Amino acid sequence: MTDDIFILHNLWMIVATILVFIMHLGFAALEAGLVRQKNTINILYKNAIIPSIGILTYALVGYNIMHAVDISSVFRLGVHFPGGDGQDAFNDKFTFYTNFIFQAMFAATSATIVSGAVAERIKLTPFLLFSTLYTGLCFPIIARWKWGGGFLDNMDTPFYDFAGSTLLHSAGGWAALVGALVLGPRIGKFVGGETKAFPGHNIPLATIGVFLLWFGWFGFNGGSIGGAYAGQLSQVFVTTGVAAASAAIAAHFTSHLLFKTFDITMVFNGILSGLVSITAGSNLMSIGEAVMVGGIGGVMVVFGVRLVDKWRIDDPVGVIPVHLFGGIWGTLAVGIFGKLAGWSQLISQIIGIGVVGIFCLVFSYIAFKIIDKIMGLRVSEKVEKDGLDVHEHSMHAYPYFGRKE
Amino acid sequence: MTDDIFILHNLWMIVATILVFIMHLGFAALEAGLVRQKNTINILYKNAIIPSIGILTYALVGYNIMHAVDISSVFRLGVHFPGGDGQDAFNDKFTFYTNFIFQAMFAATSATIVSGAVAERIKLTPFLLFSTLYTGLCFPIIARWKWGGGFLDNMDTPFYDFAGSTLLHSAGGWAALVGALVLGPRIGKFVGGETKAFPGHNIPLATIGVFLLWFGWFGFNGGSIGGAYAGQLSQVFVTTGVAAASAAIAAHFTSHLLFKTFDITMVFNGILSGLVSITAGSNLMSIGEAVMVGGIGGVMVVFGVRLVDKWRIDDPVGVIPVHLFGGIWGTLAVGIFGKLAGWSQLISQIIGIGVVGIFCLVFSYIAFKIIDKIMGLRVSEKVEKDGLDVHEHSMHAYPYFGRKE
Amino acid sequence: MTDDIFILHNLWMIVATILVFIMHLGFAALEAGLVRQKNTINILYKNAIIPSIGILTYALVGYNIMHAVDISSVFRLGVHFPGGDGQDAFNDKFTFYTNFIFQAMFAATSATIVSGAVAERIKLTPFLLFSTLYTGLCFPIIARWKWGGGFLDNMDTPFYDFAGSTLLHSAGGWAALVGALVLGPRIGKFVGGETKAFPGHNIPLATIGVFLLWFGWFGFNGGSIGGAYAGQLSQVFVTTGVAAASAAIAAHFTSHLLFKTFDITMVFNGILSGLVSITAGSNLMSIGEAVMVGGIGGVMVVFGVRLVDKWRIDDPVGVIPVHLFGGIWGTLAVGIFGKLAGWSQLISQIIGIGVVGIFCLVFSYIAFKIIDKIMGLRVSEKVEKDGLDVHEHSMHAYPYFGRKE
Repeated sequence: MTDDIFILHNLWMIVATILVFIMHLGFAALEAGLVRQKNTINILYKNAIIPSIGILTYALVGYNIMHAVDISSVFRLGVHFPGGDGQDAFNDKFTFYTNFIFQAMFAATSATIVSGAVAERIKLTPFLLFSTLYTGLCFPIIARWKWGGGFLDNMDTPFYDFAGSTLLHSAGGWAALVGALVLGPRIGKFVGGETKAFPGHNIPLATIGVFLLWFGWFGFNGGSIGGAYAGQLSQVFVTTGVAAASAAIAAHFTSHLLFKTFDITMVFNGILSGLVSITAGSNLMSIGEAVMVGGIGGVMVVFGVRLVDKWRIDDPVGVIPVHLFGGIWGTLAVGIFGKLAGWSQLISQIIGIGVVGIFCLVFSYIAFKIIDKIMGLRVSEKVEKDGLDVHEHSMHAYPYFGRKE
Repeated sequence: MTDDIFILHNLWMIVATILVFIMHLGFAALEAGLVRQKNTINILYKNAIIPSIGILTYALVGYNIMHAVDISSVFRLGVHFPGGDGQDAFNDKFTFYTNFIFQAMFAATSATIVSGAVAERIKLTPFLLFSTLYTGLCFPIIARWKWGGGFLDNMDTPFYDFAGSTLLHSAGGWAALVGALVLGPRIGKFVGGETKAFPGHNIPLATIGVFLLWFGWFGFNGGSIGGAYAGQLSQVFVTTGVAAASAAIAAHFTSHLLFKTFDITMVFNGILSGLVSITAGSNLMSIGEAVMVGGIGGVMVVFGVRLVDKWRIDDPVGVIPVHLFGGIWGTLAVGIFGKLAGWSQLISQIIGIGVVGIFCLVFSYIAFKIIDKIMGLRVSEKVEKDGLDVHEHSMHAYPYFGRKE
Repeated sequence: MTDDIFILHNLWMIVATILVFIMHLGFAALEAGLVRQKNTINILYKNAIIPSIGILTYALVGYNIMHAVDISSVFRLGVHFPGGDGQDAFNDKFTFYTNFIFQAMFAATSATIVSGAVAERIKLTPFLLFSTLYTGLCFPIIARWKWGGGFLDNMDTPFYDFAGSTLLHSAGGWAALVGALVLGPRIGKFVGGETKAFPGHNIPLATIGVFLLWFGWFGFNGGSIGGAYAGQLSQVFVTTGVAAASAAIAAHFTSHLLFKTFDITMVFNGILSGLVSITAGSNLMSIGEAVMVGGIGGVMVVFGVRLVDKWRIDDPVGVIPVHLFGGIWGTLAVGIFGKLAGWSQLISQIIGIGVVGIFCLVFSYIAFKIIDKIMGLRVSEKVEKDGLDVHEHSMHAYPYFGRKE
């Protein structure tokens, strides 16, 4: 280790940290753009608070849960850097501080995934409480199993999830599914045999969100390398870019075939599904494989949106098709295309998906139910009809639109 | 070549790639903000799909067209990295994969330039088809002439275009001109002797676009160095920043003198014109020269907008004054200020501008005409009047604005 | 100094430059989102012009004022790089050009701070003139006192302000205070004993602004290191992230206790106050100290907003509580938590705050008063009531909203 190369790897991790940070604006803009106008402030408020909850809970407990080498340190409050100061080297690529802040930003994205599925009907404080539990406990425990050197990493054929198709995305997707089921659909969503579409209120805002998510994803996947190694970094950028592109085009054609119109939200879903899908194996795939992984993700998400509707699950911004289905697909794709351990790899992938899924389902169910008992999860019918902005926030997102002033 | 410096140069190229990527959000936001509300989804849809088309066509044919060393490889489908894997070194600064993804993002911007000029009246599928042809064939052929070591690079006094004032911007500008002429003006734009202004529907959105374009341009010009060399990189940043600033101020005063009001879209045009103008010589200019090149670009664009109107060409977001006029000016400026080969340099610049222009005019004309024959380019009068969002996309950009819900 | 490490440090400074640049979009979006709809174009126009003014004045006079080694060079027009070309090394970390462009972007933010406090009632040209004087003269003079090796840096216990809680933020806050006082409140703001709230017109836009400011702040603080040193850089990122997070949560609870509602603008103020607060000592604080510095900043800002209202000062976007109060607090916090020279450090901090404050108050007062004499600062009552967009810009920000077209 020379100092120079240490500074260089550390610099990339720092840049990747900012890129993951800006994904929070991506989620905020996407989700806000896709909800109804009357709930805009509410979803923005959540997304403005979540990164802060993520950073602070990761400092308080998450970092130790994920990294502690002995069991007593797991329960220690406040970041513990064993045998050193935060400025010291965590490994030969970056400092403890860098390790902390990159992962804190990363952990914070896990709660954001959930927020879209429970939008427009969950009370603010219960949601923030769930987010705190989820980013502070659930995510670090899961992440420890693999990235902290836990049992998923120690199987004969280790589970492979490069940047979190399962550990972050499908995990968040399961929690989102539980949230959507526990809360039930929004009033008027499923009436009789009909499914009513509630169009997003500001599509340019959602567009900004999707692009920023794609932008940040280069840091999300690229930072997961843990350094700036030229070959790997450039490959991850190529596969991330290509998979999203392929998924966008696939969703474009699939949704046009199905719906006979060019639904821009399907292109958004496609891009995101492509990104989620490539995440687990973005450092393993060739360009052609990335085209396939992303393309299948892009087709799947269109059918996924329909399926979730058919199941009468109300998922306002498409979290389940994108993060849950896409995450599972991406994790399996590693077993199929990743040139790792063949069938036994595919089995390990299924085990990882299953174990994480069961844990997240149970954790989220218990967490949501306890919070529901204590303070109630769902807003009243009046609040839901009037919109959460007026009742929870005493504000309008656009108080002057349509007025002269 | 040490490994460290290779990783370092490669890292900058990767960061530059993300910066060029985010220019697509810049174009999306700018163009959407400057069209009428009823065509918002349509322009966002195009801009969300174009980067994907760009990446995929560059993977399929563009990369090979631009880089192939023998003629048979030109016609090969799928990226071909001669004698290596994508992770291997393309040169002593970055990998094949980096070369591919930086240029793919770059190529994708070429189609985006066109979209603004044909906005609000071109059908979606024909436009996407044109974009595919343009980014997949036209741009890589032109780029090969110079950056692939072609004839423009092998003249006695080589044509000089550092980051693409001509190869990308004026090229796109010519295609935009052809598109605008083939389609004709929007209904109601030129009635009798009058030119009607159709104000952009969301100026904050356009502002976001302009800033993101400026932001990304630092990577567009800075990445064109092909490495992180401190002296060159810092110079390119300075000239890029200074030229845009100078152009903004120049446009501010020029448009106020002409129109007696502070038209923010003229400041936007100024900034972009300054950026286009400095692109060809951003690694050659001093601070003072950058002030002049940008300043002239900023004055020119205000008159350019008027001129295009006077010619009764309908260019909804000002593509022709910004990218065509600015690109030509910037390319000529290299011959004037660039301290290269004097008069013979200026002649080479004119040759480059001319050859690229003729090729783009012919290519675009044929492409638009063939597509028009097959499926028609322009939407029906009813669709144009109602807006493309309702007919092509069955959506509204802001379905609740001005309503209580 | 090896060449490699020079290129590496320079690269980080270049990346930090872009991050500071995008803060201008952050300010534009935040301020535009928080003003009334009728003044949207006006505030965007200012913010689009300010970075250009900043870059050009810094090139013309600012750089020399801040860096000149002899008195005659202070008055020299045009950037003077002593003994070298811009591409040459300024120090062992970066080039002259890098030094120039990073600081030019930095200087430009100083004027932006003021714009929010004088919004919705100041004429455009007088404001731009003030900005020119402020970024061209006031900021470089103050900055020279510390960062140019001036008297604040040469006290027995040197004043400490790592990235500008005082030199940039509280300085701008004082100028904002003077501006708000000289102009007086907007019509209808304080009537009888009542304070009327004028809600911001576009909260999603403001959200984009806050996130981009936070994003850019990593470059603002991180670039102030003057290199990519791994330990320091990662620490600055951690403290910057943690302080903002802590402040957001603190503002969330404080404002809910006070106002019984979840006011998203208070969370925005909290985030920004946390960022301003940590700026002076972001390279000195531990995680726990950053939590405290940010948390106190977050509580303070909520009371600060109330206090400014109580004083009947009209500060439309909360500049004074965020930048002035936060800047003072952050500078004092260095004396309290910074483990520097104990009481004598705290005294030096107070001296620095005081000297900068007095200079800014006097400079701004004289500048505003002279400009007022020459051309009048405030728009007419009619213009204010109709909105500046119609009168100064002949435009609407959203000409079609609430209409069918």
